[in-house]
Amino acid sequence: MTDWTAMTLAGFQRGLSCGEFSPLDWWRASRERIDALESTLQTWKCLAPEPAITTPDGVKPGQSLFGIPVGIKDIIDTARLPTTWGTRGYHRVEQSDMDASIVTELARLGALPMGKTVSTEYAYFQPSKTHNPHDPTRPPGGSSSGSAAAVAAGMMHVALGTQTVGSIIHLASYCGVIGFKPTYGTLSVAGVKALAPSLDTLGWFTRHFEDTRTLFTALTGSEPIAAMARLDGVRVGLCQVPSTPTPSAETIAALEGAAAKMSVLGAQVSNVDVGTSFDELVGHQRVILAYEATRALASERIRFGEIMSSPLLALLDEGQSLTLATYWQARQATERARIVLSQQLGERFDVLLAPSAPGTAPEGLNSTGDPIYSRAWTLLGVPCVNMPLHWTPQGLPVGVQLIADRYQDQQLLSIPSALMP
Amino acid sequence: MTDWTAMTLAGFQRGLSCGEFSPLDWWRASRERIDALESTLQTWKCLAPEPAITTPDGVKPGQSLFGIPVGIKDIIDTARLPTTWGTRGYHRVEQSDMDASIVTELARLGALPMGKTVSTEYAYFQPSKTHNPHDPTRPPGGSSSGSAAAVAAGMMHVALGTQTVGSIIHLASYCGVIGFKPTYGTLSVAGVKALAPSLDTLGWFTRHFEDTRTLFTALTGSEPIAAMARLDGVRVGLCQVPSTPTPSAETIAALEGAAAKMSVLGAQVSNVDVGTSFDELVGHQRVILAYEATRALASERIRFGEIMSSPLLALLDEGQSLTLATYWQARQATERARIVLSQQLGERFDVLLAPSAPGTAPEGLNSTGDPIYSRAWTLLGVPCVNMPLHWTPQGLPVGVQLIADRYQDQQLLSIPSALMP
Repeated sequence: MTDWTAMTLAGFQRGLSCGEFSPLDWWRASRERIDALESTLQTWKCLAPEPAITTPDGVKPGQSLFGIPVGIKDIIDTARLPTTWGTRGYHRVEQSDMDASIVTELARLGALPMGKTVSTEYAYFQPSKTHNPHDPTRPPGGSSSGSAAAVAAGMMHVALGTQTVGSIIHLASYCGVIGFKPTYGTLSVAGVKALAPSLDTLGWFTRHFEDTRTLFTALTGSEPIAAMARLDGVRVGLCQVPSTPTPSAETIAALEGAAAKMSVLGAQVSNVDVGTSFDELVGHQRVILAYEATRALASERIRFGEIMSSPLLALLDEGQSLTLATYWQARQATERARIVLSQQLGERFDVLLAPSAPGTAPEGLNSTGDPIYSRAWTLLGVPCVNMPLHWTPQGLPVGVQLIADRYQDQQLLSIPSALMP
Repeated sequence: MTDWTAMTLAGFQRGLSCGEFSPLDWWRASRERIDALESTLQTWKCLAPEPAITTPDGVKPGQSLFGIPVGIKDIIDTARLPTTWGTRGYHRVEQSDMDASIVTELARLGALPMGKTVSTEYAYFQPSKTHNPHDPTRPPGGSSSGSAAAVAAGMMHVALGTQTVGSIIHLASYCGVIGFKPTYGTLSVAGVKALAPSLDTLGWFTRHFEDTRTLFTALTGSEPIAAMARLDGVRVGLCQVPSTPTPSAETIAALEGAAAKMSVLGAQVSNVDVGTSFDELVGHQRVILAYEATRALASERIRFGEIMSSPLLALLDEGQSLTLATYWQARQATERARIVLSQQLGERFDVLLAPSAPGTAPEGLNSTGDPIYSRAWTLLGVPCVNMPLHWTPQGLPVGVQLIADRYQDQQLLSIPSALMP
């Protein structure tokens, strides 16, 4: 019997080409696992009917993701499935007549949309119904809740997420999966509901680093990325853990463990001061998020303000109170910080190592957890990948993120496989 | 009888408050002029029914644009009017259930949407049906064709446009009106059809510089901008006219005339080398436009490729052939050029003076004209304002643009009034 847990995207393609698999095998295996776990985990907003491909020779040239089931976050437009933007059915028109750009691209590559995964309301902080597969009394984090949980539960090997605050990285940390946020602007967000356009970034969750590399190559049409076996000569900047909020012992252990492992593999690990106050960057991120979200959701607020959640309304109120001058100052400070970071990285480091979240997923489902450790990196537009390297004695994951300068995504993704057991 | 041509937005508000005007007076005057000229000029995709306000005491606090009729470019979503994105009715759903952010903001300020102005197909180069009011055998330029022509014809005093290549500035030049493109990202483009999100910028056309300042203040909620009476101490960098395409004698005359006038008003005008090759910037703009447009319109191409225009298909083909590496190189080069420009401007110049277009609107309606003189400025994200200062003996306008560094919009807009007759 096929071990779908260990399967990779490339392995499935190989099995298809030699007749070991049929095109819908993975889709059906995923669907079985969804049917078994969905009542507990609540990861899906809706599921697609079984697609109509039956023969292995259906593969067209360039379809490097043929037959791969993919979860689509519910803020991403799909022509054949409803889109509710994580809301409780606010909108009159819930079905776009057009796919988002990324959905079209996935279809062109032969991937099969499994359905829409649960998102928090407009990808902000109001908790969703989804549970953390490692402990259903805890959240998966927000906003890409369903995508992270579905991949963690083994329902899917690939699910799309978006990050505006920390909606890929901190969920990947809470759920013990790989989460990748490319350089800002790498994938088109046409057809993705905007929260804060200067920050909104499409990325994805996977179970294997090889699959993250495969997806990057496929979705950007770029050259294959070779994984490093060792890390000799890689210069790693170990970011100081922020003082607020206080990181848990697990987070510190995860960070130190990853740094030690990188050293053993030949990397040169040294402490880094990124040249800009982390707290200041967090402040700029909050300003840009609030200012832009208030404008991006201006019409929604007028129409649906009475049934919006209090976290969202608080954000929109905050944005309404901000002046253009404050917003522009935050943008200008961000541009300066990007230049400083690029200089630091160019001269001294290849990648940075930083915590993904202050601790494990919190207890109780009334919060999505604090994404604060991602705010600065999202603001700077840099590629980040969560590495699920550490687990507590209770079996809860705590991730660390590896970060590179903008446009260094391929170099970044060449590293993590070496660290995996 | 009211001289609507000379009316300003602030003047109308004063007239309303003292009972001289009724709230729908300007709307009805505009509508009359539209009815008289529309069959010749073809500026509207659809017109709104008369709004339901009847008493002058309908003004709510903060409604600084109360009763102002506004033309809305057809790529901007409106809940009460169809949106066709400049296409010939490609889409099944032509009516969004939500207003774009800018439409909501205009409504909050009390403005009255007059209708949807003609856009070229997805705001690209295929000529629209609209004629230039100064010579109906010539085009108004593209893509904000209807907005520019409606303001030039006196149908409207305010119409929204967007600029991705030169779709505000070169039309304002061809039509002899004021066109303003703010710093990239100043106004939310939520609900505006994306062509190339790194470049797409919302702006507007007006007949008076005072109105452009009023709109900036109203739409951004910022402080009023005082107009300079003279330009003593203003450091003006006179941009060398690009060699390709060869500028017409009128363009050179317009540029030299504006420079002379600024000198007379006390400005220090000197030649500038912006530190980066104009041709290189144009090349980067072409790469970013093609790469992003191909992805932004990926779903549209699959659905409607057979009825798309050849200029659009050529752009999408070009974008398909570009690699991620080429795209990223263009983005990185752009970031470097922005830094160089900021240094130049900070140290040596307050504003730059440059041509808006290679000449008058071309003859014949089978082209929108060449927007090449705007490509570099759009790429750099800087605020630009077209000044309609020069007219040929045949009565055709040739504009020049004034440019400031990003986030210097208010300083930029304080200057042009001094130059007007």
